[in-house]
Amino acid sequence: MIARMFFLSVLLLATHAAAEPLTIEGQGSFFVGGRNVKSETLSTLPAYAPSGTITVDQMYVHYQIPVAAKRLAVTLIHGCCLTGKTWETTPDGRMGWDEYFVRKGHPTYVVDQVSRGRSAADPSLINSVRLGKTPPDKTPPIFSAGQEAAWAIFRFGPEYPKVFLGMQFPLEAQDEFWKQMVVDWNATLPSPNPTVPALSQLAIKLGGTILISHSASGQFPFQAAAIDTKGIAGIVSIEPGGCPAPAGDLAPYLKMPILVLFGDYVDLAPRWAPRLKLCREFAEAARKAGGKVETVVLPELGIKGNSHMLMQDRNSLKIADWLLAWIDKNVEAQRR
Amino acid sequence: MIARMFFLSVLLLATHAAAEPLTIEGQGSFFVGGRNVKSETLSTLPAYAPSGTITVDQMYVHYQIPVAAKRLAVTLIHGCCLTGKTWETTPDGRMGWDEYFVRKGHPTYVVDQVSRGRSAADPSLINSVRLGKTPPDKTPPIFSAGQEAAWAIFRFGPEYPKVFLGMQFPLEAQDEFWKQMVVDWNATLPSPNPTVPALSQLAIKLGGTILISHSASGQFPFQAAAIDTKGIAGIVSIEPGGCPAPAGDLAPYLKMPILVLFGDYVDLAPRWAPRLKLCREFAEAARKAGGKVETVVLPELGIKGNSHMLMQDRNSLKIADWLLAWIDKNVEAQRR
Repeated sequence: MIARMFFLSVLLLATHAAAEPLTIEGQGSFFVGGRNVKSETLSTLPAYAPSGTITVDQMYVHYQIPVAAKRLAVTLIHGCCLTGKTWETTPDGRMGWDEYFVRKGHPTYVVDQVSRGRSAADPSLINSVRLGKTPPDKTPPIFSAGQEAAWAIFRFGPEYPKVFLGMQFPLEAQDEFWKQMVVDWNATLPSPNPTVPALSQLAIKLGGTILISHSASGQFPFQAAAIDTKGIAGIVSIEPGGCPAPAGDLAPYLKMPILVLFGDYVDLAPRWAPRLKLCREFAEAARKAGGKVETVVLPELGIKGNSHMLMQDRNSLKIADWLLAWIDKNVEAQRR
Repeated sequence: MIARMFFLSVLLLATHAAAEPLTIEGQGSFFVGGRNVKSETLSTLPAYAPSGTITVDQMYVHYQIPVAAKRLAVTLIHGCCLTGKTWETTPDGRMGWDEYFVRKGHPTYVVDQVSRGRSAADPSLINSVRLGKTPPDKTPPIFSAGQEAAWAIFRFGPEYPKVFLGMQFPLEAQDEFWKQMVVDWNATLPSPNPTVPALSQLAIKLGGTILISHSASGQFPFQAAAIDTKGIAGIVSIEPGGCPAPAGDLAPYLKMPILVLFGDYVDLAPRWAPRLKLCREFAEAARKAGGKVETVVLPELGIKGNSHMLMQDRNSLKIADWLLAWIDKNVEAQRR
């Protein structure tokens, strides 16, 4: 453990030494959305009143703006059981996409989904159960993903602890990765997830952004576009849990360039192969309707060994470079 | 609501315009601490396995390093029901202490306490109640602070919605402030709170830092020093919920400069006046024992109108300037 911490420290120092200083025009954080809830069961502790108002369903946003930014803002949206930490320093101490996109000229916005991380959840129903006012089986279904099951979901290998040949995820630092996982309250939220209208509001507020989702947040940018395409300059859906139905209303998805991006080993993963297939069907239907929707699987580009957490894989900045070029060609070029 | 959002946007833009670009040598995030827990009730949802291992009790840390930093690292530790967001952009869109301390030459580390924000909590017992395996009255006592009760705790006024005369907190942006408040799991944690050993580990890892606590985290730096004074170059306890007992073992608190800092209206607040009194008694006892412990109440310096959230008050950077000078004189000077 101490050896690993030292190893990580050395890596952190190495990262510092390797990167040039970064100059930013501004940075900060704010919330989007939110509604007030009155509750009689906020607390069961004597020190804090049971009755009162709390604000929930707001989305925390942290941003950095490059100096004299000319490129489009990107908004990074994490997946299941994770937070905005997904996009920050990798488990083995390398630069995250949050900083890399800023260095490449993009104002970069990193969110914590509603009810996750720095975005509040509502404990009222849980306390109501504690007080005997609500039956136990109505306890909100919050959950954490166990590491053994998550292993296959993140496609580190076919099953825990087997590793796919050529795996790019830095598994030597997996302890640091598992620490990123938090309690997920999404199943307790209304539909659509309040993160969806919050993303729509953010896109409008920014006057143009590329929504970059991951995994369980895969449908959010599509759902936001279905509310209002305003401000959504493009969608990059990384390893989405789902894509819009090919037979559904495709009109919102014809108004901006869309990329669906998958890593390696998808055919070996019963959870992911059908999702890629459905995304390909969506992309084809949208193209036939006049849209500009691409599905890219990294091995088809000769980039191999990527897990579901490709933004943290060893070649994460190589993938970022490819994605930046895709954005430049397909989204930025349209604005010139 | 839209008018308020526009108002905040203008403020954000104004903040950008006002501040010079910032150059940093490095930034990133990592976790300190953490232990693996095996559980049979991680999830009650079909999509996620009930059994498995999760990592809890780790503390999320985000940092920025100024170029050629010569000053001591500061570690900012938020209080009850809040997260590291406390120290970022203020509710009315001004620069937070997180950035201001970097601009003044201090490597700055902002944490989310264990089980809060980006630091994981454990849902196992809640799910066990849901499944009928644990009696409802054993549901973990998590809570949110209601805004009406928090009003007096944060000393915006004597009671909701009355405002103390000369109040410096930007109450016109209170909606944005309430969004910072999240579910607090502290009462479910072992004692001492695992944030305490994590702060000790962080101080040792950094090879020297000033631990700056707020409110409910007030005892944490003292408790960390009681574990090991190594790496704790100083303690700044802002409006602490408590101070060490004057009659207790004071030895750990004689080894570094300590400042206990309070805002205004303390005498008018039945929750806070006794705490200030006890902190004064601790400071006096520590001084008698040879320690360097100061208690400062801002009105005594002629700085008036400050709430419990003084790092977000209108004069927050003026207070930061005073604190930076205190650090320079009392902590940095000792190193020269």
